[in-house]
Amino acid sequence: MPTISTKGRNMPESPIRKLVPYAEKAKAEGKYIYHLNIGQPDIKTPEVALEAVRSNTVEILSYSRSEGSDTYRKKIAAYYDFHNINVSHEDIIVTTGASEAIAFIFGSIMDPDDEVIICEPFYANYIAFATAASVKVKPIISSIEDDFVLPPISEFEKLITERTKAIMICNPGNPTGCLYSEEEIKQLANLVKKHDLFLISDEVYREFTYDGHSHYSILELEGLDEHTIMIDSVSKRYSMCGARIGCLVTRNETIRHTVLKFAQARLSPPTYAQIASEAALSTPQSYFKDVKNVYIERRNTLIAELQKIEGIKVVVPKGAFYCIAELPVKNADNFAQWLLESFHVDNETVMVAPAGGFYSTPGLGMNQIRIAYVLNKERLIKAVNIIKEALKAYKD
Amino acid sequence: MPTISTKGRNMPESPIRKLVPYAEKAKAEGKYIYHLNIGQPDIKTPEVALEAVRSNTVEILSYSRSEGSDTYRKKIAAYYDFHNINVSHEDIIVTTGASEAIAFIFGSIMDPDDEVIICEPFYANYIAFATAASVKVKPIISSIEDDFVLPPISEFEKLITERTKAIMICNPGNPTGCLYSEEEIKQLANLVKKHDLFLISDEVYREFTYDGHSHYSILELEGLDEHTIMIDSVSKRYSMCGARIGCLVTRNETIRHTVLKFAQARLSPPTYAQIASEAALSTPQSYFKDVKNVYIERRNTLIAELQKIEGIKVVVPKGAFYCIAELPVKNADNFAQWLLESFHVDNETVMVAPAGGFYSTPGLGMNQIRIAYVLNKERLIKAVNIIKEALKAYKD
Repeated sequence: MPTISTKGRNMPESPIRKLVPYAEKAKAEGKYIYHLNIGQPDIKTPEVALEAVRSNTVEILSYSRSEGSDTYRKKIAAYYDFHNINVSHEDIIVTTGASEAIAFIFGSIMDPDDEVIICEPFYANYIAFATAASVKVKPIISSIEDDFVLPPISEFEKLITERTKAIMICNPGNPTGCLYSEEEIKQLANLVKKHDLFLISDEVYREFTYDGHSHYSILELEGLDEHTIMIDSVSKRYSMCGARIGCLVTRNETIRHTVLKFAQARLSPPTYAQIASEAALSTPQSYFKDVKNVYIERRNTLIAELQKIEGIKVVVPKGAFYCIAELPVKNADNFAQWLLESFHVDNETVMVAPAGGFYSTPGLGMNQIRIAYVLNKERLIKAVNIIKEALKAYKD
Repeated sequence: MPTISTKGRNMPESPIRKLVPYAEKAKAEGKYIYHLNIGQPDIKTPEVALEAVRSNTVEILSYSRSEGSDTYRKKIAAYYDFHNINVSHEDIIVTTGASEAIAFIFGSIMDPDDEVIICEPFYANYIAFATAASVKVKPIISSIEDDFVLPPISEFEKLITERTKAIMICNPGNPTGCLYSEEEIKQLANLVKKHDLFLISDEVYREFTYDGHSHYSILELEGLDEHTIMIDSVSKRYSMCGARIGCLVTRNETIRHTVLKFAQARLSPPTYAQIASEAALSTPQSYFKDVKNVYIERRNTLIAELQKIEGIKVVVPKGAFYCIAELPVKNADNFAQWLLESFHVDNETVMVAPAGGFYSTPGLGMNQIRIAYVLNKERLIKAVNIIKEALKAYKD
């Protein structure tokens, strides 16, 4: 047969996917699985969004505008204004999920073998989009010992080469739950200005910040309009992961013009999902307050329960709904598989995401897992108890 | 500012987009525009698909499976079986439009600087997806003088190099309306087997074949399972362009495994659109019969009216709903712009797609336009009459 591409071979598998066959087998055997492995919230999608789709009057489901409709983009701009981000609807290009925004940005700013610097651990799919674009991720280690704060700027500077095109952050962070302060963002701003790089920020968890911390967007930076590109999505904000609507926002007109050519090639974002997403912008603020309270309670529960387990190290997340936990095991891949294959408490077990897949430096994070706290409090307690009992029984 | 990528700069603009500002100006001046420029049918989406979305009971709009649900893929497999294409649901990966299927295939089989051979004129976005993947389209000319039939295999063979990974066809063809016969497809099959290449076929217009001609899919070929990859979409079949649901189908397991990694990176296709697309598979056959009759009448009207115009050359399309017309003008770009800017009949004018954008060899097709016959008969007659009067008045 004809050979597939080198990049096709190098495309990483999802760190969770390897476990799927074991999860399926466990289910087939009648085990119940607590899914701590994926960021699919159990929160209801706002009724206003669901109802807009149910009552739609489309007769011909036609192409929409490649960049998203003016009305939708104007409402998004108003949403940003509420969050201290002053942009025009013309600065926004609607995409098929944040995923597509990342692909468009990588394509627009990087050629094969160009480089983007990202703190690891990072959202695993960043490496997939980089591989698909034949570009390289240069990782910079943020460590659990330092609470995953931004590494010193000197560490970034060491990695900058002639091929470096951008620094990319996820803030609040998946998988760490870190939240970068205004000061940290401004340090990065100085750096990208000094070296004439792009600063890309994935801010899909903007609403999910805790303990009085507020989110500082890269689009609040002054004098950096040509450098900053923000990525966003409705997926987590409105528990609408299946919509597949995101956007990218930049005041850099050349980038927008280039991204638009990528957007035109794929014709348009999905129409029904845009109906839902536009309506979702009318979600009352009380929804976010309620959802945030739910996540704070879950986070507090999760951390308190984890801290009861001997040998576990965990950083209290300031944002998003994930945390990285270091376990007293050698290899979390094996442990996660064993949880599904060979362990249960009252016929219940847990699926976690081994954290190795969130690092690009081989060997890092091998004793860590990512936990998504997207289950209710009672279920979280049961799930962590299973991990506790499992660690007592496990030998690696 | 930081520089954008070379491929970003090289991404082609849509051949129609350049005309959009002129069309907007014409509309602002109160002119009515007949849109012959885009393949957006005016046919109603099947009620069964619209109703499925209106009556959906989703409460949490969650991620779906990256490859599409088993139930949907099983129904697609049954649809193919009806069309003489014997595949399992496991051979199918659901994508966000045929666009994404093309991007996934290019990514899976080609590295930067690899080559794909495509007959020109071809669907303009093929070149955009190739540019995005840093790969090269090697065009082979199919000419209006030869009714856009498949060029001699010897011409393909001349273009094959060490970098050639695939031959790609669109059958029935956009923008030519050509329909390749079983014999032509089998010639290509021998060629790809001889040189160990992939054969990619975009078959989104399968249902739209006329004059008793039937469609022959590359998946009907025997002994070529490792080489053939078919692209499909619900967009034209059910007049659901805005759904953004397509798929790719191949019996080559390695390709599917590789494509799935790209699919997992973008998480899932849009959920509402999958609800619509799955329901659309219950569309009664009478719908297609009716739609086909509508297109046959439109095609006959369009061709008859065009043939009345002195100096126009046109090939009767055997499939899809486009035709290429050669005009007695030097530069169809200028003519198309002039139609919008400076011409009208009773305050009505026409927007057409200059065909230069459907060729990758510079200078080819400069006196040709693509006409999409997606308007009703009366409107087609009026639109062609405007072209007729315009050609009398136009000086280039």
